[in-house]
Amino acid sequence: MASGGPEIEQLIQLLARLPGLGPRSARRAVLQLIKKKDQLMIPLSAALDRAVSAVKTCEICGNVDTVSPCTICADPRRAESGMLIVVEDVADLWALERAGVGAVRYHVLGGVLSPLDGVGPDDISIDDLLKRASEFKEIVLAINATVEGQTTAHYITDRLAGSGTKVTRLAHGVPVGGELDYLDEGTLSQALKARTEI
Amino acid sequence: MASGGPEIEQLIQLLARLPGLGPRSARRAVLQLIKKKDQLMIPLSAALDRAVSAVKTCEICGNVDTVSPCTICADPRRAESGMLIVVEDVADLWALERAGVGAVRYHVLGGVLSPLDGVGPDDISIDDLLKRASEFKEIVLAINATVEGQTTAHYITDRLAGSGTKVTRLAHGVPVGGELDYLDEGTLSQALKARTEI
Repeated sequence: MASGGPEIEQLIQLLARLPGLGPRSARRAVLQLIKKKDQLMIPLSAALDRAVSAVKTCEICGNVDTVSPCTICADPRRAESGMLIVVEDVADLWALERAGVGAVRYHVLGGVLSPLDGVGPDDISIDDLLKRASEFKEIVLAINATVEGQTTAHYITDRLAGSGTKVTRLAHGVPVGGELDYLDEGTLSQALKARTEI
Repeated sequence: MASGGPEIEQLIQLLARLPGLGPRSARRAVLQLIKKKDQLMIPLSAALDRAVSAVKTCEICGNVDTVSPCTICADPRRAESGMLIVVEDVADLWALERAGVGAVRYHVLGGVLSPLDGVGPDDISIDDLLKRASEFKEIVLAINATVEGQTTAHYITDRLAGSGTKVTRLAHGVPVGGELDYLDEGTLSQALKARTEI
C-alpha cells in the first residue's frame, strides 16, 4: 500500500528515475527531504523551478548552460588555443573542464553512431561540427573508447580529411594512479606501444 | 570551475545532500534531469512544489502524510486489532506497511534515547505514547536492535509497567532467505534460543 499519500508517492517515483537512485533510496531521499523541509526541500524545489526556466542548450556547441551561446563559447580567450574538443555527452565536457584542460572549446555530439540502434550521422551533431571545423587548428576527438565511439571517431576523421584541420585523439594508456594488475590487456598493450622516454 | 552556470551548480549541490547521492552522482542526476526536461525535470519540480505545501506530520502518531490525522490514524478498521507498533522513524513505519503487517496503528518516536548525544525522554515522543497507550491491548516495540534502541525499549517498558497493556518486542532470529554463514553471532545465538518446533 502507498505510504504518505499520492503527493509523496509521486515524488518517490520521480526521484527513483534519477540515475543512482532506485525505489528504496528514493524513499530514503524523500524522507530526508521531508525531515529537512526548510533546509533542503524548499531550497531544492526553488532551485529546480529556477533551473527549469533558466537551462538552455548552447546553439553552437551543445553544452548546457543558462545562456546561449554558453559561457565557454562566449569566452574570447578560448578561441586563442585554436583547439576544439569533440565529446559524446555534456557529462564528458564537464569532466574535461573539471580536469582543467585549459582554454579550449568543445563540441557535444549528443551520442555516437550506432547502426544497430538506428543512430546515423544525421541523428548526432556531426554536420554542425563540420561547419565549425575550419575555425580551429586542431580537433581532438575525446570520444569514449567503445566500438561505437571508435566508429564515430573514424567517420569524423574521414569527413574532415582534406580540410587542413589537424585531427587527434586522446592518448590511450595507464590511468594515473592505476595499478597494472587491474588493467585490461588492450589498455596495457596500447600503453606499451605508446611508451615515452623518461 | 563551475560548469553550466550558478543555477545548475546550486541544483547539483542540493541534490548531493540527499542520502545515496554524492557530488558525482548528483551531477549525473542533474544532466539526466536536463536531458529529460519535459518527462522528468518539470514533473519533478511540480511534484516537489506540491509536496512542500501538502506534506504534514500527523498530530497523533508522527507519521508523514498530506492530512493530519494521517490516513492510518483516521482509518477506524485499524483500531479493531488493538495493536500499536512503536517505531523509531517514519521510514520504519513505511517498511512495516510495505511488509503488510496488517490493520495496526503506529507511534513514531522520532529518535531513540541517547544520553551521549543529549537525547532524553523529553526529546522524543514518549509522553504522547504513554497518553495513547491505554487505548491499545498490545504495544509492540519495533525499535532497532542497537544499544540506544534497546535502552529506549527498556525505558518505555518500565514506564508502561502496571498500565495493564501488554508490551512485546519483535522476534530476533535468522532473516528469511538469509544464509547462516553471513550472520553475526548475536543473531545466531538468539535464533537458537528462540527455536520453534516444526
